[in-house]
Amino acid sequence: MDHQQSLSELRAQVDDINMQILELLSQRARIVSEIGKIHTAMGNAHYDPAREAEMLTRLQQANKGPFSNQTIQALFREIFRASLEMEEQQARAKIKVQRKSADERTIIQLPNGAVIGDGGFQLVAGPCAVESDEQMEEAAAALAARGVKIIRGMAFKPRTSPYEFQGMGETGLQIARRVADKYNMAITSEIMDASQIPMMMDYVDIFWVGARNMQNSFLLKALGKIDRPVILKRGLAATLEEFLYSAEYIVASGNPNVILIERGIRTFEKWTRNTLDIGGVAVLKLESHLPIIVDISHSAGRRDIAKPLARVAKASGADGLMVEVHPNPPVAMSDAKQQLSIPEFNALMDELVELA
Amino acid sequence: MDHQQSLSELRAQVDDINMQILELLSQRARIVSEIGKIHTAMGNAHYDPAREAEMLTRLQQANKGPFSNQTIQALFREIFRASLEMEEQQARAKIKVQRKSADERTIIQLPNGAVIGDGGFQLVAGPCAVESDEQMEEAAAALAARGVKIIRGMAFKPRTSPYEFQGMGETGLQIARRVADKYNMAITSEIMDASQIPMMMDYVDIFWVGARNMQNSFLLKALGKIDRPVILKRGLAATLEEFLYSAEYIVASGNPNVILIERGIRTFEKWTRNTLDIGGVAVLKLESHLPIIVDISHSAGRRDIAKPLARVAKASGADGLMVEVHPNPPVAMSDAKQQLSIPEFNALMDELVELA
Amino acid sequence: MDHQQSLSELRAQVDDINMQILELLSQRARIVSEIGKIHTAMGNAHYDPAREAEMLTRLQQANKGPFSNQTIQALFREIFRASLEMEEQQARAKIKVQRKSADERTIIQLPNGAVIGDGGFQLVAGPCAVESDEQMEEAAAALAARGVKIIRGMAFKPRTSPYEFQGMGETGLQIARRVADKYNMAITSEIMDASQIPMMMDYVDIFWVGARNMQNSFLLKALGKIDRPVILKRGLAATLEEFLYSAEYIVASGNPNVILIERGIRTFEKWTRNTLDIGGVAVLKLESHLPIIVDISHSAGRRDIAKPLARVAKASGADGLMVEVHPNPPVAMSDAKQQLSIPEFNALMDELVELA
Amino acid sequence: MDHQQSLSELRAQVDDINMQILELLSQRARIVSEIGKIHTAMGNAHYDPAREAEMLTRLQQANKGPFSNQTIQALFREIFRASLEMEEQQARAKIKVQRKSADERTIIQLPNGAVIGDGGFQLVAGPCAVESDEQMEEAAAALAARGVKIIRGMAFKPRTSPYEFQGMGETGLQIARRVADKYNMAITSEIMDASQIPMMMDYVDIFWVGARNMQNSFLLKALGKIDRPVILKRGLAATLEEFLYSAEYIVASGNPNVILIERGIRTFEKWTRNTLDIGGVAVLKLESHLPIIVDISHSAGRRDIAKPLARVAKASGADGLMVEVHPNPPVAMSDAKQQLSIPEFNALMDELVELA
Repeated sequence: MDHQQSLSELRAQVDDINMQILELLSQRARIVSEIGKIHTAMGNAHYDPAREAEMLTRLQQANKGPFSNQTIQALFREIFRASLEMEEQQARAKIKVQRKSADERTIIQLPNGAVIGDGGFQLVAGPCAVESDEQMEEAAAALAARGVKIIRGMAFKPRTSPYEFQGMGETGLQIARRVADKYNMAITSEIMDASQIPMMMDYVDIFWVGARNMQNSFLLKALGKIDRPVILKRGLAATLEEFLYSAEYIVASGNPNVILIERGIRTFEKWTRNTLDIGGVAVLKLESHLPIIVDISHSAGRRDIAKPLARVAKASGADGLMVEVHPNPPVAMSDAKQQLSIPEFNALMDELVELA
Repeated sequence: MDHQQSLSELRAQVDDINMQILELLSQRARIVSEIGKIHTAMGNAHYDPAREAEMLTRLQQANKGPFSNQTIQALFREIFRASLEMEEQQARAKIKVQRKSADERTIIQLPNGAVIGDGGFQLVAGPCAVESDEQMEEAAAALAARGVKIIRGMAFKPRTSPYEFQGMGETGLQIARRVADKYNMAITSEIMDASQIPMMMDYVDIFWVGARNMQNSFLLKALGKIDRPVILKRGLAATLEEFLYSAEYIVASGNPNVILIERGIRTFEKWTRNTLDIGGVAVLKLESHLPIIVDISHSAGRRDIAKPLARVAKASGADGLMVEVHPNPPVAMSDAKQQLSIPEFNALMDELVELA
Repeated sequence: MDHQQSLSELRAQVDDINMQILELLSQRARIVSEIGKIHTAMGNAHYDPAREAEMLTRLQQANKGPFSNQTIQALFREIFRASLEMEEQQARAKIKVQRKSADERTIIQLPNGAVIGDGGFQLVAGPCAVESDEQMEEAAAALAARGVKIIRGMAFKPRTSPYEFQGMGETGLQIARRVADKYNMAITSEIMDASQIPMMMDYVDIFWVGARNMQNSFLLKALGKIDRPVILKRGLAATLEEFLYSAEYIVASGNPNVILIERGIRTFEKWTRNTLDIGGVAVLKLESHLPIIVDISHSAGRRDIAKPLARVAKASGADGLMVEVHPNPPVAMSDAKQQLSIPEFNALMDELVELA
Repeated sequence: MDHQQSLSELRAQVDDINMQILELLSQRARIVSEIGKIHTAMGNAHYDPAREAEMLTRLQQANKGPFSNQTIQALFREIFRASLEMEEQQARAKIKVQRKSADERTIIQLPNGAVIGDGGFQLVAGPCAVESDEQMEEAAAALAARGVKIIRGMAFKPRTSPYEFQGMGETGLQIARRVADKYNMAITSEIMDASQIPMMMDYVDIFWVGARNMQNSFLLKALGKIDRPVILKRGLAATLEEFLYSAEYIVASGNPNVILIERGIRTFEKWTRNTLDIGGVAVLKLESHLPIIVDISHSAGRRDIAKPLARVAKASGADGLMVEVHPNPPVAMSDAKQQLSIPEFNALMDELVELA
């Protein structure tokens, strides 16, 4: 077909020009690097807005199209920025959370022997919040009986309203730790502020960053400096790109052990609390080597579709799922509608066992 | 716990009042029905806005709260409306597409023996659009070889821009029919206007209503009057409730054979073309007895996650999936990026066979 | 050689390279523009991620630093984006509804002397639906008293549920016509199917295409063949680009007299029925020469913010507004919550008069 | 008995039943209100679909017609909805940021004499980020010349990627303070973590909480304990209700001086960076006594609609607007596309002066 042939020829020309531009960009970068060294020697800042403005003016005078001056300006601004950042960043690798090869993966080992990201399917389960010794004891016993290795031990609850239950605080962590130790389970618990790290290190096996804090870069950087895994929840209107960049904040700060969790995004649909982005899970498995688990409780906001969603999570290629389980959901202090009772949880496990 | 006890007692009181209101509403309806008969005898319209305004004024004067007058007005307006509609609608059953019992289901039989909705997992596949005899022949041969029974034979393409390929029209249907007959396949093809029905009846086994026409009630009613199955695609920003009501337009007009298709909803996320609402599929299986299939092509807009999405569709409990397959995707006249090549389709089938 | 001298020399080299890059970017843009024309001719989307990925891979293989592969990727992504924007702009340059010069505008003359799009601010008002002679008489008298020249005469109502009030049909149009003639008003009325055109031509001055039919290209093309203005409502999840392309269907089919109406888009926010996209109105005024009016009733779904929204509509540069007014909103057969009563409408007019 | 007589008698019966229903609805509302208080005390959501489903089932079992079960269901759903709205209104009645009377308003006095919320229209302007002494000097001189009293002095930038410019830190605050003092301007500056409060107290007149931190309740509570105004930005997918609850965190912790800022919400539309929710601004003015300003830069993401958006902001009833202004936008280190140049800013001011 003519069109196909023309396309091939034009594309070859574009490829050729791309290579020439690349060569010029590299030359330019080497010269700018020299300039940078002189600036350093002279004690100047590297950033020189007046010089940039001058270059842009010159380019606009020379530009004869077809790109508009505005576009040329924008493109060169990117080149300037890249040059500026080059020196600061040359040492830096490219994005750390990006998968470099098809079989690269981050495998996370927990102190109780549980593993996330090795190709198995791991469960994180437990009540929405720690409410009492009895509640945690009952939940943990039921979960342990079905082989669950990681329990929710949430003691700080970020809530929409200041008048809602905000969690038991450190007392809750003590309860969770005691119960978890009894059943040889690992604890994951939500952190809300960097100042809580030292205290929480005494109790928590996996730090949990909630959806509302996904872009709290101050907190993310602080969690990048500790030696303990972090579960990072997708913000309720975060793109997958923003989600990966948030993980990058932690990994680039020094902590490679990040687990992503997809929890449904905010859309117009109201028969489910959020819209589980299962296609996003599949994309994240392609793009990143970090393990990903699927939150089947918050994404649905209703327990009557827990079984199909658990099957779906497994089918998607995710590394596990998160489900809220409470000994007595109707009296739970938060998320009452979506937590599974223990019999419901057992039915869910039967379903998953069948799939395995 | 005190709170629980108080709740129980108050709820019992509410239940009691509900029953009293129910009784009064029924009495009221019987009287209004008498009034209606008198209106009919007198040749009057049933709708009497002046009388309604008068009743509302009286109620507002009597209202002492805690409901605001506005709320009381709104509630009684609903009562008036219900009364008005009662006579016209008493014969009508409740919503027809709503599942009445857990095992109720609509099973659709096609002339070539294929069945949708019987608990099996049916595939609908084929190119985005009919482009030529050769293209359809090649696609159909490959699909038939893997047991596909329903082929896309799209000859009218609703496009965003008037300058995009709009389909081959009736010629395309002729091609599709010839090829389908050769391989004993059923054809599904998109209809865009009620006026096309008589012509299309000669070629098409399943009418297809696209996302842009999901709320074209004129077309839906017309399709309710024919004796041929209809695939109804969810609008790209339609709620599940609106989706079911659109199906109801067809079923209430006389055609029970409707197949729902979830194709992803429009959200802010851009790494997939749309966001596949797999939770919605699970909810629809609970709410409706109509069969549901999952469109893994338009929901993703990228072929590299076709395999996990096919597994997910099956895991969700859906009755089948729809996938676009083209002998030569790069030169397809529409949707080039998301159509599978034939080898990619074969790999997908291998994956599904493994699951079965 | 001192620092300043070295700097000057290196800067001269950078300037020289800048010019070479500029020249290559311009060459590249011209070729890409050719490619774009071929894509348009083939009916393909301009955005081709596979091709971009291929180019990036080649560039990374060729890159020898000092820019990291990541930086080269980012810079070329900007170049790709600029090229894509240019192609899309060029494709749009041929679009008929696109404004070619700052002062180009479509001005619509109605038989009763009313004008839309001449820089004035025109009101379209009236009940959600025609319900009776008395209702229309009362509404029209009130509207005419305040100078409104265009009345809603809606006789076919596209409803979510088949069991809701579907309009009075042709009887409603007869009522609307009689009342409009009495008060020298023009009528706008919703059309749902191309087959209604001949009948409606007897009654209607401006055809109205509802949000549910914005992409019913069959209907749009039919309306492009008649000699009567069309109000086109934005679909509830339509992008501005899709909106303009729908207008293009009508204009390209031969009818230049299209009026756009922004009516709020579907988002997660629920305190208003939809989210009025006022920034979109400002963008449409830049992009298109068609007149645009703002629907302050459906966008809000509540009458208590009608006044600020009317002020906002005027401030945005729109050519008018649409507001639902009913003699007795509480008993209206549809949209009861958002229609203004006549005293509320009068207060709104006082507000607008103050602004003028 | 003739028809008219029968009608009168039947209507009297209907009136009587109406009054009985009204009485029961009021009783019911009082009990539901008690239930609501218990839910609030328990930290539960008021909406309880399981309980509603149970009541509906009971009503359907008891219903003997003539209303269909469907109608009874619909009517009681309206009653439930009205009850729910009442409960939520009552829960909100205690909310501190909720307007209790039409003329209640929070007026914020700044040390340089500027006032926000007194019915005037205040401007907040300045560069996206502090980049240098010269940049701030030039910006401040231009802003002060047009009477702007509040300047952006942003020194901590929350960015999507860890590799983007993160702000100058305390050095930036020092620059901003020096320049602001010279021109008698107040400074607003973004805070990212509670630990920054003591340091920032030395420089900042109004703390700024960014969209990413809108639900960082730890930070909000800390800002509630200081005696300095706070600008709170709406999260990019926050509902108006969530927005007000975030303000409530600050106010309930002791700091009444909160200024809301609407900055556009995330939607599917891409011709603007976000969708300015101007209807939301109108609703917030009704619901809350806090001052509200409109961010015309981030909501649009493009400078070519700055003028209409400024007019719209004023028309909406907002207390001011925020606009990014940079002496040299093309070389800005962030948000280059949306910042106004100084001549563009001057043109905007001319437009606003004309409106005043």
